[in-house]
Amino acid sequence: MHTSKNNEVYSRLQKLREIMRQKKIDAYIVPSSDPHLSEYLPQYWRCREWLTGFDGSAGTLVLTQDFAGLCTDSRYWEHAEYQLDGTGIQLIKATGGEFASVKNWLSTQVKTGQTVGVDGYVISLIQGRQLEKHMQKNKIHTETNYDLVSEIWVNRPALPKENIYEHDMNFVSESRKEKLAKVREKIREHKAKWHVIASLDDIAWLCNLRGSDTLFNPLFLSYALIGEEVTFLFVDAEKLPTQLKEKLVEDEIRLKNYEDFLQVLSGLENTFVLMDPRRTNFNMQKNFKKTVIVIEEPNPSVILKAKKGEREITHIRSVMERDGAAFCEFLTWLEARLKHQEKGISEITVVEKIEEFRKKLPNYVGPSFHTIVGFNENSALPHYRPILAAHRVIEGDGLLLIDTGGQYLGGTTDMTRVIPVGKVNFLQKQDFTYVLKALIALSTAQFPKSIRAPMLDAIARAPLWAQGMDYGHGTGHGVGYFSSVHEGPQAISFHALSEINTAMEVGMVTSIEPAIYRKGQWGIRLENLVLNRESIKTEFGEFLCFETLSLCPIDTQCVEISLLTMDEIEWLNSYHAVVQERLEPYLSQEAKDWLMAKTAAVSMKPIF
Amino acid sequence: MHTSKNNEVYSRLQKLREIMRQKKIDAYIVPSSDPHLSEYLPQYWRCREWLTGFDGSAGTLVLTQDFAGLCTDSRYWEHAEYQLDGTGIQLIKATGGEFASVKNWLSTQVKTGQTVGVDGYVISLIQGRQLEKHMQKNKIHTETNYDLVSEIWVNRPALPKENIYEHDMNFVSESRKEKLAKVREKIREHKAKWHVIASLDDIAWLCNLRGSDTLFNPLFLSYALIGEEVTFLFVDAEKLPTQLKEKLVEDEIRLKNYEDFLQVLSGLENTFVLMDPRRTNFNMQKNFKKTVIVIEEPNPSVILKAKKGEREITHIRSVMERDGAAFCEFLTWLEARLKHQEKGISEITVVEKIEEFRKKLPNYVGPSFHTIVGFNENSALPHYRPILAAHRVIEGDGLLLIDTGGQYLGGTTDMTRVIPVGKVNFLQKQDFTYVLKALIALSTAQFPKSIRAPMLDAIARAPLWAQGMDYGHGTGHGVGYFSSVHEGPQAISFHALSEINTAMEVGMVTSIEPAIYRKGQWGIRLENLVLNRESIKTEFGEFLCFETLSLCPIDTQCVEISLLTMDEIEWLNSYHAVVQERLEPYLSQEAKDWLMAKTAAVSMKPIF
Repeated sequence: MHTSKNNEVYSRLQKLREIMRQKKIDAYIVPSSDPHLSEYLPQYWRCREWLTGFDGSAGTLVLTQDFAGLCTDSRYWEHAEYQLDGTGIQLIKATGGEFASVKNWLSTQVKTGQTVGVDGYVISLIQGRQLEKHMQKNKIHTETNYDLVSEIWVNRPALPKENIYEHDMNFVSESRKEKLAKVREKIREHKAKWHVIASLDDIAWLCNLRGSDTLFNPLFLSYALIGEEVTFLFVDAEKLPTQLKEKLVEDEIRLKNYEDFLQVLSGLENTFVLMDPRRTNFNMQKNFKKTVIVIEEPNPSVILKAKKGEREITHIRSVMERDGAAFCEFLTWLEARLKHQEKGISEITVVEKIEEFRKKLPNYVGPSFHTIVGFNENSALPHYRPILAAHRVIEGDGLLLIDTGGQYLGGTTDMTRVIPVGKVNFLQKQDFTYVLKALIALSTAQFPKSIRAPMLDAIARAPLWAQGMDYGHGTGHGVGYFSSVHEGPQAISFHALSEINTAMEVGMVTSIEPAIYRKGQWGIRLENLVLNRESIKTEFGEFLCFETLSLCPIDTQCVEISLLTMDEIEWLNSYHAVVQERLEPYLSQEAKDWLMAKTAAVSMKPIF
Repeated sequence: MHTSKNNEVYSRLQKLREIMRQKKIDAYIVPSSDPHLSEYLPQYWRCREWLTGFDGSAGTLVLTQDFAGLCTDSRYWEHAEYQLDGTGIQLIKATGGEFASVKNWLSTQVKTGQTVGVDGYVISLIQGRQLEKHMQKNKIHTETNYDLVSEIWVNRPALPKENIYEHDMNFVSESRKEKLAKVREKIREHKAKWHVIASLDDIAWLCNLRGSDTLFNPLFLSYALIGEEVTFLFVDAEKLPTQLKEKLVEDEIRLKNYEDFLQVLSGLENTFVLMDPRRTNFNMQKNFKKTVIVIEEPNPSVILKAKKGEREITHIRSVMERDGAAFCEFLTWLEARLKHQEKGISEITVVEKIEEFRKKLPNYVGPSFHTIVGFNENSALPHYRPILAAHRVIEGDGLLLIDTGGQYLGGTTDMTRVIPVGKVNFLQKQDFTYVLKALIALSTAQFPKSIRAPMLDAIARAPLWAQGMDYGHGTGHGVGYFSSVHEGPQAISFHALSEINTAMEVGMVTSIEPAIYRKGQWGIRLENLVLNRESIKTEFGEFLCFETLSLCPIDTQCVEISLLTMDEIEWLNSYHAVVQERLEPYLSQEAKDWLMAKTAAVSMKPIF
C-alpha cells in the first residue's frame, strides 16, 4: 500500500531527517504533548500526528536516519498498526510505560557518543531529567533545545482562539478568591514566594474559568504565576469578554500575554518558586535566573481540586441522573431497532445517536472523550473508536461495548456498558459475569482513609486472576469536575505505584472499570464512577467506602447468576432498585417500560 | 524513677552534647545500623542502644542541646515507652517510615543555618542524599563525617571474631563459581568493570559462606569487590579455617583485610563501578576518585538470591516438616501442662521450651529472631518479647500468641500461631476467624507473574477492612535461605510501594501474616511462609500461586465456623490433612495423638 497519505508521511520524515543531520542529532523523539503536558492537544501541537498520521492520544515517534518507530501502549496497538500500515513506521509496543519504553529503545539503538534530541518544552521536568540521566549512563548526549518540527511544518495551524467563560458560582463550591487563599497558604507552608502553574486543569479550577481550546477538555491555554499578593494569568486576552476581564481584576488576577510568560519568569530574582516537576515542562525551568531557588512539590491545587465540595457533589449526582436517563433513552431506541433487525445501524450510528440524546440535556457542553463503540471483535480493542473509514454494522449475534461520557457544567461523566445483541453464548455470559464480580468486589470495598489508591487495584482483579484472566489497563482513573475526564492525582492502577500523592480522600471521584478482552472475539468492560465517602470510624482508624455515581442498568441477560454469590446478587438488585428510582422521573414512557424490565430483580435458581 | 541505668543514659547524652558543641553540631542523629546497613547489629555498632538503653531492632536517637527523642515505628512504641521511662528521652512515633519521620522532625526542630550531624557510614547512600536534600530545602547544613559516639564510648566492644564456615554444596543449588559467573554477566550488562558489595546477606550467598557475627543472622562482617577476573573478599582472615581459605583461592576469591576495604576502593581509577545505593553506606562513595564512574543499580545478587533453586526448595520443604513437628511437640507439652493448670508456666518458659525442642533437630543452628510470646494484653503488642524483668505467667483464660523461627542449614523458618488457653470468648473467636479469612484469601490467590508484591497486600486486608479492622505492619516479608529472616526484595506491604524491583517471581519465599491487635486485650496474628510457584498459562499471561510451606495446625477451637465460606472451610480442612500427613512421621506417640485431634476436619453446622 502506498497512498498519498503515506507519501506525505515519508516526505515529512525525510525533511525531519535532513534537519537532524544539520543539527547533528542522531535520534529525535516526538512525544504527544504540549508545554502544558496536556493529554488532548490543540492542532498546533499535534506534531507526532502530523508526522506519522497516527491520531491516538498517546504515542511517541522515534526517528533515526534509517529507522522510524512509533511507541505506544497496548490501548493503541491495533489502531496504530492500522494507521501506520504502509508508512514504513514500525510499531514499538510499550509495556510498563511509554516514556520508559522510549528511553529503553534509545539506550539500545543509539550508540555511545551520539546525540538524542527532543523538544524540552513538551516533556515534563521529571521526564527530561530521567532521559538525561539514562542517556548519560549510556554516554549519550541529550539535546533538548530544538523543536525541529516547527522548522518543517509549513502552514502549522494557529493556536486556538476559543472563548473563555466563567464556571458559574452556582456550580462550584468556592470562589476563585477562596481557592487562591488556600493555595497561598500551601505556598507559604513550602516557604516559597511564588508558585508557577502550567497545567491547564489546575488553572481552570483555580480561576473558575473554562474554555474550549482542546477537544473534550473544557480548558484554555494559559500559565499562572501566583505571588504573595498578586496573581498573573498569562492568556490571550482576546478570548475573554470585557466583563469577565473586569471581574478577574476585581479578584486581583492580572492578565498578561500568553507569549510573555517565559520572559516574566526570567525576570524573577532572589526568590523561592514552588513548582511541580511533573506538571511543568523541562525547558521552562531553564528560564530561571540562578538566584531563584526552585522548591519542587506537587501543585497544591491538584489535591484541593480532586476533593469535590458538597455543592459539586450535589451537581454530580444530578448530572448522573440526567446523563444516565439520556443513555437509557438511547438504549431503548437502539434495542427496539435491533429487535426488529433494522438494517444499517452501525457503530457510528451509536456514537451519533448518543450525542443526539445528550444534546437535549440542560448544561450539556460536549463529549468528555471520543465515544468508544465496538461490536464483537472491535470490542476487544480497549480504545477502539469507529471511524468513517473503518467501522462495523451491528448485525447478527454478539456483544456491543459502549464507553461514553459527557461534559456538563455540573460534572463530567464516563461510563461503560456491554449490550447483548441477538443471542449471547455461555462463554460470553461467563466473561461478563466475572467482570461484574470484579466491579462489585471493588464497588463494595471498605478501606482505610489515606490508603494509596493503587493498593485497591488487586481487589478488583482478584476474581479475574483466580480464573487466569486479567486486563492490560488500570482499574480506575480520577475524574475531574467539568474538567479532564482523566484527572488525578489518584489512580487505581498498579502502573501508578511509584507516583506520589495518590492517597484516597473523601470527595474524590474515580472510575472502576475492570474488563476482559478476547482478541478477535469480544471485549467486556463495565465502568462506573464512584465517590469516596466516609464509612465508619473504629479503634483501627477511619474507613472510607464508595458511592456508585453512574446510573444505568447492567444487562442481566449477560449474567450467569449461578456464578454470583448471594451478596453479589443482592448488590446487583439493590443497585438496579436505585437506578430505577432515580432515573424514572426523567424518562419517556417507552424508556420507563424498558427500565422496569432491565432493572427487574434477579434471584438464584433453587438447586433442587 | 531514677535508676542507675537512667543516670548512665543521662551522663552519656551529656557527653555527646558536649562533643556536639565542640563540633558545632546542633542536632545529631544516631540510627540503628552499621556500615553494611544490617538489621541485627554486632555489639560494636549498637550505639543507639548504648546511648538510650532501648534495645529494639529499629529506632533512631535524635539529640539537641535541650531535647532527646527516640523515633521508632509502631512495632516498638510500647516497648520503647517502657525502656525509655525515666531517661528523659521522649518517644517520637514514626508513621510512614522511621527515616522519613526523623527527617520531618529535623526540619521542624532545627533552625535555618544550623547543622545536623549523622555518621554517614551507618545510613544508606539513598538516605544520605534524601537527608541532605531535605535539609538543604530548609537551609540546614548536613555533616556526615563524624562518628561522635566513638569519641565517648570508652570500652566500646570489639568487632566480632566468630568463625566463618562453608554453606555446604549439599544445601545450595549453585557453587560460588556459578554464582559469581551470573553476577559478572549482570555487571557486564550494566557496562561496569567492578561491582562493590557491602550487604552481608549478598556476600554470604555469593560465596556460599556463613558466620555468626550477629544474633539471628548467620552472616559475617565483610565487603566484596568483584572485578572481571578476580574477586576480593574483605574479611578478618583469622575467622577462616586454613582449608576454607585455600578453597576460596581455588575459586579465584582473594582475601583482603576487612579494614583495608576503603583504601582499596580509593585506589580504583578510570573505571566504572556498579553499586547499590540502597545497600551501600553514604560515606563509602566519598572514597572513590573522581575518575571513577558509579553506576547505581540494585545488587544483581538480590534477585538471584531471592529465587530459590530446586535443591534449596527441597531442603526448605523438609526443614518445614522438622520445624513444624518440633513446634507440635512443644504444643503437645504445653497444652498438657495448661490442661492440668500447672503453675508457673510463663512466656519465658515458652521461649526456652521451643528452643529446647528445636535444638534436637538435625542441622539446626539457632533462632532466626527473638521469639515473640505474648499472653492476652501482651499479644496485642506486635513485637512484644518477654524479658526477665517483665513478662507474664500463663494462667486463666485467654490467647497466647507465639511467633518463632529457626535457622537451619536447609532454610529459615518463621511462623505465628495463636493458642487458646482456658475459655475463648466469642469476640476472640470472631477476630481469630477474620484473621484466618485474611490468611486464606491471600494464600489461595492466583496472580500474574511479575506483579509487584505490594499489590497483593489488599487481598489479605480486604476481609478485615470490610469489618473496619486493620493492622499497622506489612502483610509479608521476603525470607532468606539460611540467611536473614527479613530478606527481600519482595515485600507484600503498601509501605514498600515505592521500592523498586519487587516483582513476584517463581522460587521466592514470603511470609503472609495478617493480624488484629486490640490494645490492652489481645492480639491475633497467623503467619505462614509461602513459596511462589507456577500456576497456569492462559491467553492473558502466566500466573503464579502460593504453596504454603509452614506446617502446623491452626487451632479450630478459636474458629467461628459460621463466618467461613464453604471454600474457606475446604482450604482449612485440606491444609490440616497435609499437615497431618507430613508431620506425623516425625512425631512422638503423644504428639501424634495431639495432631490427630488438632487436624480433625471441621464442617459447617447445618442451619436447620
